[in-house]
Formats: sequence, C-alpha cells, structure tokens
Amino acid sequence: MGLLNETISKIEKIDYALDSETQKRIDNLTKPQGSLGRLEDLAKQVVEITKIKKPKLAEKVIFTLAGDHGVAEEGVSAYPKEVTPQMVHNFLNGGAGINVLARHVGARVVVVDVGVASDLAPNPQLVIKKIGYGTKNMLKGPAMTKNEAVKSLEAGIEVFETEFKKGIHIAGTGDMGIANTTPSAAITAVITRKSVDAVTGRGTGLDDKGLSHKIEVIKKAINVNSPNPEDAIDVLSKVGGFEIGGLAGVIIAAASKRVPVVIDGFISGAAALIAYKLEPKTRDYLIAAHCSVEKGHRIILDYLGLRPILDLNMRLGEGTGAALAMNIIDAGVKILNEMATFENAGVSEKKD
Amino acid sequence: MGLLNETISKIEKIDYALDSETQKRIDNLTKPQGSLGRLEDLAKQVVEITKIKKPKLAEKVIFTLAGDHGVAEEGVSAYPKEVTPQMVHNFLNGGAGINVLARHVGARVVVVDVGVASDLAPNPQLVIKKIGYGTKNMLKGPAMTKNEAVKSLEAGIEVFETEFKKGIHIAGTGDMGIANTTPSAAITAVITRKSVDAVTGRGTGLDDKGLSHKIEVIKKAINVNSPNPEDAIDVLSKVGGFEIGGLAGVIIAAASKRVPVVIDGFISGAAALIAYKLEPKTRDYLIAAHCSVEKGHRIILDYLGLRPILDLNMRLGEGTGAALAMNIIDAGVKILNEMATFENAGVSEKKD
Repeated sequence: MGLLNETISKIEKIDYALDSETQKRIDNLTKPQGSLGRLEDLAKQVVEITKIKKPKLAEKVIFTLAGDHGVAEEGVSAYPKEVTPQMVHNFLNGGAGINVLARHVGARVVVVDVGVASDLAPNPQLVIKKIGYGTKNMLKGPAMTKNEAVKSLEAGIEVFETEFKKGIHIAGTGDMGIANTTPSAAITAVITRKSVDAVTGRGTGLDDKGLSHKIEVIKKAINVNSPNPEDAIDVLSKVGGFEIGGLAGVIIAAASKRVPVVIDGFISGAAALIAYKLEPKTRDYLIAAHCSVEKGHRIILDYLGLRPILDLNMRLGEGTGAALAMNIIDAGVKILNEMATFENAGVSEKKD
Repeated sequence: MGLLNETISKIEKIDYALDSETQKRIDNLTKPQGSLGRLEDLAKQVVEITKIKKPKLAEKVIFTLAGDHGVAEEGVSAYPKEVTPQMVHNFLNGGAGINVLARHVGARVVVVDVGVASDLAPNPQLVIKKIGYGTKNMLKGPAMTKNEAVKSLEAGIEVFETEFKKGIHIAGTGDMGIANTTPSAAITAVITRKSVDAVTGRGTGLDDKGLSHKIEVIKKAINVNSPNPEDAIDVLSKVGGFEIGGLAGVIIAAASKRVPVVIDGFISGAAALIAYKLEPKTRDYLIAAHCSVEKGHRIILDYLGLRPILDLNMRLGEGTGAALAMNIIDAGVKILNEMATFENAGVSEKKD
C-alpha cells in the first residue's frame, strides 16, 4: 500500500497555465485558425500534461499486461484459456497485432505477466510481476484478495517506473487475458452504475446465446460480491483482474510523472475507471485512443468525459488502438513544433 | 484531349478476384475475426486495387496542387489572394502543415503550380504546369475555356506519371488556392444536385455575413454559366479551378495505374466528383481520408459512397488529412503482411 499511496500523492492537478501561450503559438502557425482541429487540441493537452512548451514524443511505450481469469471456466469467452500464454509468446516473437502496429508507429512494447495461469518460459523481453495464477472465479467469491488488488496496482507502478528510467514521453495501455471483457464489464457496471446489459458486449466473438449467458454471469458475480462503487480497491478485488489492476497502476504512475497515457479499448477503460476512482486527477492525463466496438467502452468514455481520437471499428485490445492514436498525437505535437509561423514564412494573415 | 482519353481508357474495373483469398488470410491471423475493423477492410481494398497479394506502401506521395481563382475578387475568402504563392513558397521551404505531416508519415510532397496568378521563383522542388494566371471570375462567365479544363486534367496526369516512374505505391491529393472552396461548392452543388446552401461552408473562416455573400456569389455563378451536371468538362470549365482539374487528373492517372488514391478534404472531393463523372470506375480506387469540417464534404462522400477513415475536425486542405490517413492504410497493409497466423504462432483458434 505504501508505493500505491505514495504514487497517488504525487499526482498533480493540471493548472493549464501554458494554455494561452500555446494557443497563441498555434494561432501564429501558417494555417487558418483552428483548421487542424483535434491535432491542435492534442498538442495543447500534451503541453499541459508535460508542462513542456515544445514537447517531444520520441519515446513511445505500450504496456501490454497479461492475466488470466477464473471466470473463464464459466464459458464467457469464445476462445479457450490457453490462448493467454500463447498470445504472450506471440507478443514476445513480434507476431501479434500490437507488435506490428507498435513497429509502425515507432513504439516499444513492454509485455508483462501479472497473472497468467501458467509459468511462461523465461524471456529477456518478458517482465514477470505475477500476482497469482489467474484470478479466482468471481461467480463464487472475490476474484482476488484486497492485498492482491493493491499488489497488482503496485506491479503496474513498478513496471512504469522501470520504463520511465529508460525514457518515456508517452505511454499506452494494452491488455491480454481470455475472458477479460467479463470483469471489465462488471467494473464498468459497478462504477458507472449502468446496467450490466448496457455495458456487456460480445468480446472476442460470442453469439447471442453466449452473450446472454455472459450477462447472467456478470449479474450474479456482482450480486455475490456486492462491490462498493466508491471503493476502487474493493471493486478491483471482487470483480476485477490482475492485468486491469496493473494497467490502473500504469495510469497512476504515468500521471505521477506527468506523462500522457493513451487508453486503448474496453479493458484499458475499466482500468482507467479504477485509477480515476482512486484519484480523480488522473483523468486529465488520459487520452482516449479510439472507440471500441465493445459497447461498454463508449459508456466508460462518456463517464470519464473523454473523446476518442479514432473510430475504426476495432476491438482487439493489446494496445493496438493506443499505438495508432499515439501516432496522431505525435502528429499534433510536431505541428506545434515544426510548422512555420506567418511571420517567419512571410505569409499574409487573415483580412480584418 | 488525347492524353486524357487515353488515360481514362486504361482504367480497369476492379474485379475483386482476390477478395476471398485475402479474407481467408486475414482470418488466419492471430486475432479474433474482424477485430481490427477498418484496418482489415483497408488492407483488402489495397490488395484489390493493386492486384498484389502482399502490397507494400513504402512510396507515399502527396500531390499538392496550387491555383488561383478569379472569383476571389468577389471577397469570398477570409484571406487575401497573395497567400496562394506565399503558401507555395512555404511548402517549398518545408514549413507548412502538409510538410510536417508528410514527414511524419514518410511521404514526399510534390508541389505543383497549375495556375497561381503570379510567377513563382524557380525552385527544383516546384513543378510548373501553369495553365493560366488564375481562373477568370466565374461570376462573369466561365472560369476557364474547355481547352484549359482539359489541359488542367492532363497536367495532373503528367505530374502523376512523372512520379509513377520514380515509384509510387499510394497517392494522396492536396490543394492550395485562396477562394477554392467557392468553386468546390459550385461543383458539388451542380454534380450532386444539392442546394448551394447545403454545400457551402466558411472556408478559411468567414463570418455569417461573409458566408451569406459567398452563397449568393455561387448561386449567381451557377446561374450565369448553366453548367451541365452530366458533362464534367463543362462543369470544371465553367465553375471549377485549375488545381481542381489537376487533382482530377491525378486521380484518373492513379486509377489507370492501379494505384490507390487517398482523397483529402473538400477541394479534393470536388476533384473526385469531376474524375467520377469522367469515368465512374475511378470510384473504387478512392479512399476517403477524413471528414472535413467544410460541410459540403460530407455530401460528396455520401454521393460517392465513401466512408472517411478519420474525423479530426480538420479543414486545412494541402493534403494534410490524406497524409494522416495514408499512415492508417499502411498500418492495415502491415497487419496483412506482418502478423503471425494461428498456425505459425501456435495459438489455439476459437471454440466451436
């Protein structure tokens, strides 16, 4: 608990002190005012988060955290549970979607085992922060103990801090864990107080029957555990997951270091809810990458007041949306840094 | 007319022969089926356009064509006319929005003077294909002769073909020309048969009074010239612009070589309408980059049945939206080329 509380205590409120100066600089660039739309907004947000007038986003890091879920035994996923370690292996070999997109945007991927249900072969690229061999089945009681919930958050903090020492300008969140849309939907329903039906989607590809069953499982799990919506640790421990806690830790650590965090899809969104409930100031450090097909994601974004950058009908997770969005944010920052001003370029300004 | 007709005659209908093979390949990649959404669709479209099973988009080219407009003297733009050559100068110095974003995505920018109203200083980076010193004021008669309209189209074809010899895997369109949302709105109203009010926006930043005036000017220009909606050359000559004709030529030339063309914003959209009316088969070679703030752009996209990739509240032109979208398309193609399959990665497939 020490590391968690200490990290949270370091999160500063963003004061927007550089806002008018940055806006003035943007408005002096050789383009009609506001004509680069969200690129301009994103550049301003990065300036405010980092407190750097001409920030650089050269060091991009995607944190892809993997964990298993006891509730998978209820048949809530279209894929078998062994896919979690298999996909971790795929990440380490560079063959997964996140590897391709991270290479495309020049980001490095940090793969972390926070709770895969088997022992993974040692690999210099794999960070091991195992809290347990998968969570327990939340239909039968809490997914983890409160101590494990805190440990999962602290694992994310530690992982971020290690990367911070190597250099990181912008972070992205990503996940892997068969069945993890189930705890994510549970967290979303509890914290946003929306119905389970409203926040639960087909995950990796359930049919109608599978979806109805998943909804029933989530409803029962919430009933069995009665998580307290105002107590994020309680929610995380009862209906959460190790990778969700870890990602919330990454968010908290990034905010404590004034590093912008790009939130990927639904699972990352659930982690953002946990981080937000632990410390609402984290919100202003978050940038929503995209709007996932998984329907609860829109509810999370609305709850947090975040507007996604992309809407490409994606629902893979792993940090894939975060990677693409980082690249758009970087474009905005480069506009701020590299474009000529009216004065420098000798271009006439708008007529009165 | 020879080059134009010859180029049009080379445009092939896309037969989608590789569709099922490509879909099968995508579905074998280590991700739930369809979970990369539009990235998958874009990859498939590039395969069909290029007829290459594993296409590469390494050589990206943005064609930024500049021209002036006689109608600028009616006060339809928030900026003075001298900004056109000033911005061309800015492009050549690498300080404009399109330069920054093209560098960001690894594209080269080909800057073309198709009709700037002054002589630009010679520069090895500047392609000169001047059809005239700006168009005539379309309020008083046709903006250009039919011969000039054909020449502007052929200028675009020639520019594309020169770049094609250097290597080009994907093209983007871009524009610069003070007042050019006015002819673009006129073209859009005539071809889509929507009202001038519905297709006319604020351009670089007109106030309400300026917008009303612009709408009146466009209505009068259409009345004075009576362009025939079914005759693209007639529309282009009467209410068009040299850079719009040139961009339509780029589109036609790209389609004739089976190169995908990323359409930027409103002016590029008007050029796409001209190209489409000349040869409807061009449509399947087009990829809409984004949805511009300029309201007529949505009408063009709907008319052509194109779905934009990005919606970032942009309205700069120059090819800025095309540059960002190209990078997303490239991401899709890399997914197709670089991701591991279930078999190769040893990942279990979906349960029955």
